[in-house]
Amino acid sequence: MALYVLERDRTRARQLAETLIEALDRLGHCERCRNLTETQPCGICRDSSRDHATLCVVSSPGDILAIEQSGLYTGQYHCLQGLLSPLEGLGPAEIGLTTLFARVDADAPNEVVLALASTVEGEATTHQIVSHLKGRTRLTRLAQGVPVGGELDHIDASTLSQALASRTELGQ
Amino acid sequence: MALYVLERDRTRARQLAETLIEALDRLGHCERCRNLTETQPCGICRDSSRDHATLCVVSSPGDILAIEQSGLYTGQYHCLQGLLSPLEGLGPAEIGLTTLFARVDADAPNEVVLALASTVEGEATTHQIVSHLKGRTRLTRLAQGVPVGGELDHIDASTLSQALASRTELGQ
Repeated sequence: MALYVLERDRTRARQLAETLIEALDRLGHCERCRNLTETQPCGICRDSSRDHATLCVVSSPGDILAIEQSGLYTGQYHCLQGLLSPLEGLGPAEIGLTTLFARVDADAPNEVVLALASTVEGEATTHQIVSHLKGRTRLTRLAQGVPVGGELDHIDASTLSQALASRTELGQ
Repeated sequence: MALYVLERDRTRARQLAETLIEALDRLGHCERCRNLTETQPCGICRDSSRDHATLCVVSSPGDILAIEQSGLYTGQYHCLQGLLSPLEGLGPAEIGLTTLFARVDADAPNEVVLALASTVEGEATTHQIVSHLKGRTRLTRLAQGVPVGGELDHIDASTLSQALASRTELGQ
């Protein structure tokens, strides 16, 4: 990318560099939820029209953008700094689980929604959070199953078996 | 494909043709479930170790293979001949809904699992089946949500919003 912008489009390369510097100067992490923000606390944490009793745990600011675009969720967020990965030296303290647990103790939300990837690292992180917070608050996770618009023959066997196991009632 | 086998590999082309003719001669549709089979009824319909009180509705024999590979389902199947698509002239009779309704009336299963694609045609077919069978038996459908192994930022907004809406309880 660096070679491309240096060779082809030096004006826009300078714009890109200036915008990046501006973003680096102005954007920081929200002190409450660790989302990227220009203000302290961030817009979502300050918004009093949102539900402050529901806390959605994600692993990156990009996930907050994705969930906000889906338009259904109106609660608060807590953004971890990645997922547990002992091989890369990422333990509970490194990804901010201790901060999350302290926040749950302080705020006592009615529900904590775990919206982490269903990869090995995501499942390990979900498991760690559940074993620590179990009994203190209502814990939920994103439903697993067939994606909307999905055809059965393009879906892997584990997703299909998960979708069958947690099949939902109809016609009531 | 025809040009490739005629030019490159005439021996295997002949094998392919002979296997295809053999399959056409020997494979028919099971008179109970409409799956492809060499015997009447098919192996799944005859298997007395399977659960005969649960009926899974799919739209093609390929879906039966996919669900069997997932290894979780032990009930019976009913294979439709496609999905409702008025523009292509596929109505309830063409795709075999009348046969399905007659079978449900005759066999009175405890549960009918609708395992149809969540495309427009699949949803229309699911809706038609639900409106006809509602109140006669327990109706369920495959769970919709995040596929196993899926990362949040690769998932479309409708799936994410569905996965949030039908989030599941943890830690109980």
